[in-house]
Amino acid sequence: MKALHQWLRPGERLDDLQLNNLHLIQDPDSFCFGVDAVLLSHFARVKKGEQVVDLGTGSGVIPILLAGRHPHCRITGVELQPEMAERAGRSVAMNGLSDRITILARDIRDIREVLAPASVDVVTSNPPYLVPGGLVNPRETRAIARHEITLTLEQLMEQAAWLLKPGGRFYLIHRPHRLVDICVLGRQVQLEPKWMQLVHPYAHKPPAMVLMQLNRDGRPELKHHPPLVIRQEDGSYTPQLLDCYRQPE
Amino acid sequence: MKALHQWLRPGERLDDLQLNNLHLIQDPDSFCFGVDAVLLSHFARVKKGEQVVDLGTGSGVIPILLAGRHPHCRITGVELQPEMAERAGRSVAMNGLSDRITILARDIRDIREVLAPASVDVVTSNPPYLVPGGLVNPRETRAIARHEITLTLEQLMEQAAWLLKPGGRFYLIHRPHRLVDICVLGRQVQLEPKWMQLVHPYAHKPPAMVLMQLNRDGRPELKHHPPLVIRQEDGSYTPQLLDCYRQPE
Repeated sequence: MKALHQWLRPGERLDDLQLNNLHLIQDPDSFCFGVDAVLLSHFARVKKGEQVVDLGTGSGVIPILLAGRHPHCRITGVELQPEMAERAGRSVAMNGLSDRITILARDIRDIREVLAPASVDVVTSNPPYLVPGGLVNPRETRAIARHEITLTLEQLMEQAAWLLKPGGRFYLIHRPHRLVDICVLGRQVQLEPKWMQLVHPYAHKPPAMVLMQLNRDGRPELKHHPPLVIRQEDGSYTPQLLDCYRQPE
Repeated sequence: MKALHQWLRPGERLDDLQLNNLHLIQDPDSFCFGVDAVLLSHFARVKKGEQVVDLGTGSGVIPILLAGRHPHCRITGVELQPEMAERAGRSVAMNGLSDRITILARDIRDIREVLAPASVDVVTSNPPYLVPGGLVNPRETRAIARHEITLTLEQLMEQAAWLLKPGGRFYLIHRPHRLVDICVLGRQVQLEPKWMQLVHPYAHKPPAMVLMQLNRDGRPELKHHPPLVIRQEDGSYTPQLLDCYRQPE
């Protein structure tokens, strides 16, 4: 059996996922996974034997965490950038998960060529947040950026809706300033928002992220979890956050 | 000058609004105002000289609180039930606010007969929550209740949009399970959700209410306030909640 470091290429680094001795290969110069991936894989309910697709899988962190949390699901990760996809595939192999996780180096817009419609129980996605926190000057970037973003989130949700079986669940983490778009687009593509949780850096601060569960063909009624708070007043992590890193019972 | 009790009819009671010595006539057998009215009138920003309409004004509590908080605005309260409207008018007179508050005993659906389009800076509404907390058995009530509610919220939002000047603000308090409907209907009638605040009975509980500001012809981007928590763990009110009862500086 290969030692973990033998899986690495020059410049790459190995991160401990703090779950079941799982590890992840990352390139410090590329986008590295953050707390959002951990929160999303904790938020997503996956039942025994379910089929999962992670759209925009990046380093493969969400498939690997989901596989670690749910020993009986199969996951396909879709990643546009070939280098990221290759690294994700190596992380999967390194963790001995190649029989349960498949990484596809594809554009999300082309998945209809390789996956079947209404074939999936769960779709997850931690998409790029193209407009960071809405703090960009609207006068400069609005015309271009907003159009691009709308297209991207819309396409993502259309593909998720297309993949999901009736009653299937789409788990999404995004910036709270896009909440209206998520609701409007969701209803447009028959993905009804069913569960929501706001994530606050501190209890008295506005939310920095929103976790959503949208159900394919669900009936309208949004339920809410209590707020998820990242840090206590002294800066240490809350028990709630630490719980997201724990293996389910 | 009449003493306060002389304004009362048999069976009515006088409530102290805890603001500027304002009082409200209530019929304990009818719907009495609650914390939601206080939260909404605290949440609503009203600038000097602005014209406000409160849709479904009930006892008149929101116009009276707004008039108390903002000494230079004019408010029209619209109430369908003649008895409630009459009592609201008496409360207005009792508080010496008849020059600034007008109560109309009208159906909200008929306001186009008495008010002008795009004439108002601010609309407020604390509409009845016909489906309490979504805990009603969906199989029994769905067909009738949901249809009625959708119609009601949709009509309310259409009327608010019709009343508001471009850039005008609609302030709404509702149950969080209707959030998706508020977003979807809002965008439909050019009322863009711009600010949101969830109200939690306790910090670790799911929200019980949502406060929203929707702007007529606003551009998409939802901003969030920190959560508003009603009670501390020991059951006492939080400083945040008590602040909602305080006169603005």
